[in-house]
Amino acid sequence: MFKIESIKSQSPQVAIDKERKATKFDINKMFEFLESGKDEAALTKSLMQQIERDTILKTNASYYDLTKDQHRELTAQKIARLASYIEKDAPFFENFQKRLNLIAIVDPQLGTRVGVHLGLFLSAIRGNGTEEQFKYWAFERGAAYLKDVYGCFGMTELAHGSNVAGLETTATFDQKTKEFEINTPHLGATKWWIGGAAHSANHCVVYARLIVSGKDYGVKTFVVPIRDRNHNLHSGVAIGDIGAKMGRDGIDNGWIQLTNVRIPMNYMRSKFTKVTQRQEIVEVPPLEQLAYGALLGGRVTMVTDSFRMAQRFITIALRYSVGRRQFGAKNSSEELKLIDYPLHQRRLLPYLALTYALSISSFDLSQTYDSVLSNLDAAGKSQDFSKLGQAIAGLKNLFCASASLKSTATWYVAQLIDECRQACGGHGYSSYSGFGKAYNDWVVQCTWEGDNNILASNAGRLLCNLLSSCKKKEKKIKGDLSYLNGISNIDKEAICWNKQSMTNLSNSNIDKELFCFNKQVCTVKLINAIQGTIIRLGVRVPNIGSKKSTWDDIAAQRVVLSKLNAVLYMLQHLVLKIKQLGDEEAHKQYLVQIAALFATSQIEMNFASYFLQFKAIDSLEPVADVVSELCLSVRDQVIGLTDSFQFSDYFINSALGSHSGDIYNTYFDTVNNLNNPQVRDGKAAYSEALEAMLRRDPLEVRECFEKSDKVLKKLAPKI
Amino acid sequence: MFKIESIKSQSPQVAIDKERKATKFDINKMFEFLESGKDEAALTKSLMQQIERDTILKTNASYYDLTKDQHRELTAQKIARLASYIEKDAPFFENFQKRLNLIAIVDPQLGTRVGVHLGLFLSAIRGNGTEEQFKYWAFERGAAYLKDVYGCFGMTELAHGSNVAGLETTATFDQKTKEFEINTPHLGATKWWIGGAAHSANHCVVYARLIVSGKDYGVKTFVVPIRDRNHNLHSGVAIGDIGAKMGRDGIDNGWIQLTNVRIPMNYMRSKFTKVTQRQEIVEVPPLEQLAYGALLGGRVTMVTDSFRMAQRFITIALRYSVGRRQFGAKNSSEELKLIDYPLHQRRLLPYLALTYALSISSFDLSQTYDSVLSNLDAAGKSQDFSKLGQAIAGLKNLFCASASLKSTATWYVAQLIDECRQACGGHGYSSYSGFGKAYNDWVVQCTWEGDNNILASNAGRLLCNLLSSCKKKEKKIKGDLSYLNGISNIDKEAICWNKQSMTNLSNSNIDKELFCFNKQVCTVKLINAIQGTIIRLGVRVPNIGSKKSTWDDIAAQRVVLSKLNAVLYMLQHLVLKIKQLGDEEAHKQYLVQIAALFATSQIEMNFASYFLQFKAIDSLEPVADVVSELCLSVRDQVIGLTDSFQFSDYFINSALGSHSGDIYNTYFDTVNNLNNPQVRDGKAAYSEALEAMLRRDPLEVRECFEKSDKVLKKLAPKI
Repeated sequence: MFKIESIKSQSPQVAIDKERKATKFDINKMFEFLESGKDEAALTKSLMQQIERDTILKTNASYYDLTKDQHRELTAQKIARLASYIEKDAPFFENFQKRLNLIAIVDPQLGTRVGVHLGLFLSAIRGNGTEEQFKYWAFERGAAYLKDVYGCFGMTELAHGSNVAGLETTATFDQKTKEFEINTPHLGATKWWIGGAAHSANHCVVYARLIVSGKDYGVKTFVVPIRDRNHNLHSGVAIGDIGAKMGRDGIDNGWIQLTNVRIPMNYMRSKFTKVTQRQEIVEVPPLEQLAYGALLGGRVTMVTDSFRMAQRFITIALRYSVGRRQFGAKNSSEELKLIDYPLHQRRLLPYLALTYALSISSFDLSQTYDSVLSNLDAAGKSQDFSKLGQAIAGLKNLFCASASLKSTATWYVAQLIDECRQACGGHGYSSYSGFGKAYNDWVVQCTWEGDNNILASNAGRLLCNLLSSCKKKEKKIKGDLSYLNGISNIDKEAICWNKQSMTNLSNSNIDKELFCFNKQVCTVKLINAIQGTIIRLGVRVPNIGSKKSTWDDIAAQRVVLSKLNAVLYMLQHLVLKIKQLGDEEAHKQYLVQIAALFATSQIEMNFASYFLQFKAIDSLEPVADVVSELCLSVRDQVIGLTDSFQFSDYFINSALGSHSGDIYNTYFDTVNNLNNPQVRDGKAAYSEALEAMLRRDPLEVRECFEKSDKVLKKLAPKI
Repeated sequence: MFKIESIKSQSPQVAIDKERKATKFDINKMFEFLESGKDEAALTKSLMQQIERDTILKTNASYYDLTKDQHRELTAQKIARLASYIEKDAPFFENFQKRLNLIAIVDPQLGTRVGVHLGLFLSAIRGNGTEEQFKYWAFERGAAYLKDVYGCFGMTELAHGSNVAGLETTATFDQKTKEFEINTPHLGATKWWIGGAAHSANHCVVYARLIVSGKDYGVKTFVVPIRDRNHNLHSGVAIGDIGAKMGRDGIDNGWIQLTNVRIPMNYMRSKFTKVTQRQEIVEVPPLEQLAYGALLGGRVTMVTDSFRMAQRFITIALRYSVGRRQFGAKNSSEELKLIDYPLHQRRLLPYLALTYALSISSFDLSQTYDSVLSNLDAAGKSQDFSKLGQAIAGLKNLFCASASLKSTATWYVAQLIDECRQACGGHGYSSYSGFGKAYNDWVVQCTWEGDNNILASNAGRLLCNLLSSCKKKEKKIKGDLSYLNGISNIDKEAICWNKQSMTNLSNSNIDKELFCFNKQVCTVKLINAIQGTIIRLGVRVPNIGSKKSTWDDIAAQRVVLSKLNAVLYMLQHLVLKIKQLGDEEAHKQYLVQIAALFATSQIEMNFASYFLQFKAIDSLEPVADVVSELCLSVRDQVIGLTDSFQFSDYFINSALGSHSGDIYNTYFDTVNNLNNPQVRDGKAAYSEALEAMLRRDPLEVRECFEKSDKVLKKLAPKI
């Protein structure tokens, strides 16, 4: 309607189309690589289509204009819609989990609101309850199908978050009635941030201190009904909405106070701890931390979320960077594309490489999680302590990898969204670009289900301890961390990733250079350089400074170790996956460059000072040169490399990043469809107040001339 | 109402009160230091009180629950209220500017919405118009008092932001009617992001290409009336609301399309360019960039904004860090305060130091701006070309300092808000903590009025060029950048900031070590180390890599140079100000430690790799040690150091950061006052949909048993 002739001097869609046609590899093959296989890719595609075409699940630009209350209601409607999908997905709940992961790309709050019930509530019951307990709540009652029982996860309290063992809600066993009495002893113990509590849930897994005969047995979990069949609050249960949040307004987080709420004794999850009716004996499990294993699933999912969110926003920023032009090119009437500025390449392409690295890691980590969980289950059932020991070792490795990756990936993706927004200039600040809500929704991932700083310093501590036992030759490490065994000859080895290796990295030798895992004195490789830096930092960390330090004193360095470990994990898994491709595959060479760009840009952006300090590099400039060259070598394929994600405009949901590249028309239409300029003659509802201000009488008039000379003379006292 | 007994095991208010009482210096004296003087401090205080007590200007926790439309309306009401203040402040508009800066602490959108009119619209008229033109619009019509004329600033277009010279709107001179015809030639030239255009403004300063007799004279500015006295759009003017943004919803940003809109020829701002009636002769000014000088004021204000916003959020995070406890201390039943964790100190205290550094810089930069502007005015009036030359040199220096500081400060403060939010854990994600809206409002500062990457690389380029002419001894530099003259003997000098200097830094010698500006071979100081690093990086940058590079190839390094330059500016100005204090002043020793912490933490966080590379330090560990020690040395004064800002709870506006420190009660009350749990029996308005889902019939029933064995048997074809 309001359009004048379409833009002439700039036609972003033509530029994007041209670069799309110049793609030198098969984007379907790249898609399969990114989705970890042909079948998985087909499944992703079909689930995406089902989401996109469902009229209730639909999300479009109007999403960015919704109020908190509208978000809440719409999310509830979508959950009701999802219930019909889960019934048909059953018993293959992995499908439904994948559905949720994909929905979270455009509507993270929906993913979380359902995820709290299925992922936290039900996992807590499965992880800590007996098989019969799980069957009852999940299938007999229907919680697994979003039916009858809808749960929330009552762990966090107002005054206690990370320190779960310090929670103060109590569950006191009453020998007479064989019941537990659940109590919130004071304001600080109020359950807080409980997703689903404000409006949705009728049951809550409450983390509370088990008190039997006056003795405190620590924090256990209990199923507490909070609302009845008519959704009215049970007596003794007080609940409120905790209101507006930075993001994820669609989730009804609430607070819960329980005052002498009685539950039958068998509502305690009793896989590891049992209170017997007569003797009040409590059995403590072999390892208390097993009870928190349920939380690991959330961390693994968040690495997947990181991959998906990175895909979406790097696509928007790169399409915009090809379509948008700024300042003149020499000898040309046309302005330069943003992406042709080296600084712009350096701002975005390392994040494109990160996205690719996240892909493989997220799939590999999920797989590890599944196998660790089934080993634990099997070991638990077998009652074989040696199997249990192995399963717990696997859990520890998973803990380290997931803690490193969850914290590093969620931090990096927060940076990615922000950098991509800034790279879209002012238009990135429009809600319809998608960045604002996505950032607000995203950043809580750095805090919940294990605060990033705490997770990262825990992972860093574990690495230091492993290194320490490797040094003492106490044990030989297997798996991803086996390189730590290299500590014994680290000082003899030349780990410097020198100019020669860097030159090789940016030309045809890249393949052999990068992929070589074997340690060979004097033929030093990139991966070895990272491994060497981790070892050298890890060894020094416990002795940092000349004085005797505590673990807390070196927490900052432990965080760095965790980040390095995550980057190494991503790089190794990416490289292994690339190695499986045949050399004739056209997309392989770009993947190799992306892997090299990921590694070198990470070193440059985040770890250069450590690499210099530990002599893994001898100068910054060659690194900077290689990063620039690698950026340039993938630059002409950026449209193909993001088209390979196969996100339709529905999953992009951004006025700046649609597939066609017709940025300005799309943006203008979006703005005007959602903000009709014809309403009220283009005046605001509050226009009168403004107009009255502009047309107000002069100050003297409004003051009734009471400060005029004439009046002041009258008022002067006669002297 | 819903409170159980108040929290017992944790009493944040007691902890904060105790630390407050242990403050070892006079917070009023510190306040005067931060506000740049006794009189200025008194003015700040009185303006703050006037804002805080005004019932219309009031902002409280309910602010975080407003919708976009409510923000728009409330902001307009506040503007109308401000009109009565500006009438009484006149002719001392500096007072009003200070008022706006202070209001922007809690309501940045209000500051900007008025600022566009007073700062951009009127400054453009003052900067580019004749004195008579300015007098007419500002005083005769009343724009200076928010009366009659309300302006917007029509620079940015849909397809052109940073490249102002490339704007495509046209202003074609019509010789017959002596008018300009203003035109939006195509969609991409639509004026976009124009603050105030959607609802408020009735005039617009339009940046358009001056076309006379078919010749294009480049971009000039024109006053274009867009609405009449009744606030109806003039014919030929199309305007729309650009809708939702990441933040600052209170500003009515709009788009404007002008179709053959005619304005009288004297509506062109003609201080530098004139079109005469008869001869159509165009006079071009000595330096075109003077026409954009008006924008510098905005950049200077944004450094002040950075200081104010940093004060607010570091206060919240530090109060919370004293009140909040987490995990056990050894040999104590009480958990440790967050701030007693070394990692937490390292996360927050460098930002406290940054806040102090920003204070002095923001006042000094404002002062420079005022003097540069009055020199320009005087030189312009004198028509003395030598004076004009000097004034323009001053403008160039101001350009470099303001570009470096605007970009660095706004980036750093975005990080500060984000780090402070994360340091408050989950509660930082509550809207009532204040972080979410503040971050969303803040980050546009990194983009508007000079994109940070562009400003920083421009400043970096200027530094390289200055270094290059110093090297050739073409000129001797004066003022803040005079250290660049040191390039001539940089290689002879030992600039390494070695272990010995670092040890001195963390003990009683700190004063002499840090403050020594004199270059003395072998007695090397911190400031010299930074200067040396800038010089060494700046000299190498133009030759980076072995090949011949363009300026674009080294843009990333230019950005680093600009950041280093900003840090040096802040440090030097802070140190100079500290030197003016008598040694007996109790607050001086803390300021010295803060200055040292600022410098060392900046080096560690942002520049360590360059310091290693250029041998300004020889190892990371001593730097890390000094940062840790300095953190520890200011740790026990954090309450006093933030109380010194003298922000009342009104200016803090955070459930987590009130002065009393009664975190949990305040937070709980805020949540419940704004989200009454008694409404609708605690059910959501949309509860029925959820309940229907939970109580839905089994799938077989809903499918009318049409997949039952019985039915399927009936439907089986007879074979």
